[in-house]
Amino acid sequence: MNAEIITVGDELLIGQTVDTNSAWLGTELNRMGIWVSRRTAVGDRADAISAALNEAFARVDLVIMTGGLGPTKDDITKKTLCEYFECGYRVDEAVLNHLTQLFSKRGRRLLEINKMQAELPEACITLMNNMGTAPGMWFDYHGKVLVSMPGVPYEMKHITETAVLPRIKKQFTLPTIIHRTLTVINIPESALSKELESWELNLPADMKLAYLPQLNTIRLRLSASGRDSHALEQRMEPYWNTLLEQCSPYLLAASDTTAVAHCAEALLQRGATLSLAESCTGGNLAHLFTLIPGISSVLLGGVVAYANELKTGFLGVPAPLLTEHGAVSGPVVAAMAENIRKQTGSDYAIATSGIAGPGGGTDQKPVGTVWIAVASAQQTVIKEWHFYGTREHIIERATNTACQQLLKLLETEAHNR
Amino acid sequence: MNAEIITVGDELLIGQTVDTNSAWLGTELNRMGIWVSRRTAVGDRADAISAALNEAFARVDLVIMTGGLGPTKDDITKKTLCEYFECGYRVDEAVLNHLTQLFSKRGRRLLEINKMQAELPEACITLMNNMGTAPGMWFDYHGKVLVSMPGVPYEMKHITETAVLPRIKKQFTLPTIIHRTLTVINIPESALSKELESWELNLPADMKLAYLPQLNTIRLRLSASGRDSHALEQRMEPYWNTLLEQCSPYLLAASDTTAVAHCAEALLQRGATLSLAESCTGGNLAHLFTLIPGISSVLLGGVVAYANELKTGFLGVPAPLLTEHGAVSGPVVAAMAENIRKQTGSDYAIATSGIAGPGGGTDQKPVGTVWIAVASAQQTVIKEWHFYGTREHIIERATNTACQQLLKLLETEAHNR
Repeated sequence: MNAEIITVGDELLIGQTVDTNSAWLGTELNRMGIWVSRRTAVGDRADAISAALNEAFARVDLVIMTGGLGPTKDDITKKTLCEYFECGYRVDEAVLNHLTQLFSKRGRRLLEINKMQAELPEACITLMNNMGTAPGMWFDYHGKVLVSMPGVPYEMKHITETAVLPRIKKQFTLPTIIHRTLTVINIPESALSKELESWELNLPADMKLAYLPQLNTIRLRLSASGRDSHALEQRMEPYWNTLLEQCSPYLLAASDTTAVAHCAEALLQRGATLSLAESCTGGNLAHLFTLIPGISSVLLGGVVAYANELKTGFLGVPAPLLTEHGAVSGPVVAAMAENIRKQTGSDYAIATSGIAGPGGGTDQKPVGTVWIAVASAQQTVIKEWHFYGTREHIIERATNTACQQLLKLLETEAHNR
Repeated sequence: MNAEIITVGDELLIGQTVDTNSAWLGTELNRMGIWVSRRTAVGDRADAISAALNEAFARVDLVIMTGGLGPTKDDITKKTLCEYFECGYRVDEAVLNHLTQLFSKRGRRLLEINKMQAELPEACITLMNNMGTAPGMWFDYHGKVLVSMPGVPYEMKHITETAVLPRIKKQFTLPTIIHRTLTVINIPESALSKELESWELNLPADMKLAYLPQLNTIRLRLSASGRDSHALEQRMEPYWNTLLEQCSPYLLAASDTTAVAHCAEALLQRGATLSLAESCTGGNLAHLFTLIPGISSVLLGGVVAYANELKTGFLGVPAPLLTEHGAVSGPVVAAMAENIRKQTGSDYAIATSGIAGPGGGTDQKPVGTVWIAVASAQQTVIKEWHFYGTREHIIERATNTACQQLLKLLETEAHNR
């Protein structure tokens, strides 16, 4: 089954908001066997919204719309849908109760403008929004369905998970699509594609490999569709195993994950703790680790030693080492990793020092040069890397690679036990 | 003038890639007076690409397409355009030279699959891509224009800035649109809209206010369009001044900025340095500051004191203070900020400690409770905040608010001089 997504909002067209909703919705729908065949973004204009809806209804049976449900007067989606489906308004008492409670809990007065969010088109089924003020709306229309939800991502996600997906499953007959995804690191897409060429040519027609590059990682997703998920899994198994084997030199994880998440999981499984000494990554490692709920049993913390004085003061890097080798060097990152590990008493430590640019590069150490050290009680592994791209990209690439370096150390130590 | 954006790629529809290109393109086009009236995302399918292009050409004179130009066989945009414009291929020698140099610089062998990226449709003008392997293509077609560029964001940006925008300016006659944007913090959209209601009703018909909320900040953008930018600026001036005045209690900046960027700018202007002691924000402040090029003259670094042992060990927070008040308390953040400032010798310091959730909340200190301290040589200002939302949102809200708190301290000290 195909579906389309329509996102509404001038802010999307003028580019002041990045649309993350469509990607999330695409993933969720795809997982249940619905292919999003098109996504359209239009402005806060009644004619544009109606036209996009007409076109989508002509192509597919399910249309998901987000945005334009805020309380302010530039948001006109609800009014437009009321006209489109030729109905009046009703006050939804459950929504009104929820609004009253929500505002009292936040210590704010419920204004007329907020109360109006409980007024819904008569033609729709209400989809409660426990995370915010604008409810979702489900319209059945000549055997087709339109779902309208607010554009605030966590409200949209909440409504989708609790109300939209269950109702879709009930109302539509869906095929089965299975995916298996692995993640590789530090190999260019073209080189990898060359290596996998003959394997890919031998894939059955209903099996498809997708390359999903993201900086220095690529997720490879193998997909198949049919009716019986068990049979699909069995049929995919040998192809998947060959793929895994061919990717082994660059493999970060045999799953759809990020370097940081995979690293956190590996540490958690071992009951091991981590500390960080970041120079060029500037807190990005710490930040990404702390986004993971419950990470406090793994991550003790660390030092962002941006200035050299912090490398000596907080991390005990000997000043002569800095003078002799420079901050971006093997001996300095080794000392940073070893010292933060000892000072915090963690099992493992990561240290980074590099030149993220755009300034600060030299002939000997051009922009993109990054030294990474990972340390355990037994050993310290240092490595020099050369990344390219913008400042942000170099920081991200170094962050991912630091996790890979630690994962390799963890593997080695598991083998040596 | 209107334009449309078409993004190509299964990864966009299945949701494994978030489309940041459209937002960036929307901003750039809008700035030069081109209104992006619609954005469409389609999969890597020839019929879908052609259909979207046909529809867009029926509505507008300029279509920008990104994606589907990679070297792997799932990328079919170039082949599809060649068929659409009914032409053959030519080898572009300049592109071939560039590819040869690029691969030799990266120490990689130029494969056949890479060489093919120099084969371009005869109907297009080449737009050089100095940041990557797939060049951009400009097609003139019955008085209309299609631009096709790779989907890799920094490559697309480079081609747009160096080749696409200059060529658009030359080929089309454009009106003038002016925008002024301010940023407010920690006021709900509905409350703000209520306060601005009468001001907004008095706006002339050709002037428009847009609310662009993002977590606990809202950017307010006032726009006007016409021919003469100087006349427009003069006409907007009084409305803008009244808006600024009405927003003053919540004003973060009289510009389109982020809390961290504005804070960094204020410190840079004063020649002041900053250090950070982060618990609940877990390195996010450090990370966002270090994304700013040249920040090393402002940011010395800091400690991510996630575990209490790091609060005592690295930050010298007295253990009895932690026992008596808990880690999430005024006295503890005050000590964290004051100590990191003294230890690093920075002019200012920020400290955060809170409960980002989803676990760890209590009745006295529910999830979302965050204490923030900002310290200078003269004073320390502590404040308790209550944020809502997911773990990530609470971290982001705390990060923004910490910057606001420091900005207020900087203002106070400027007044007291």
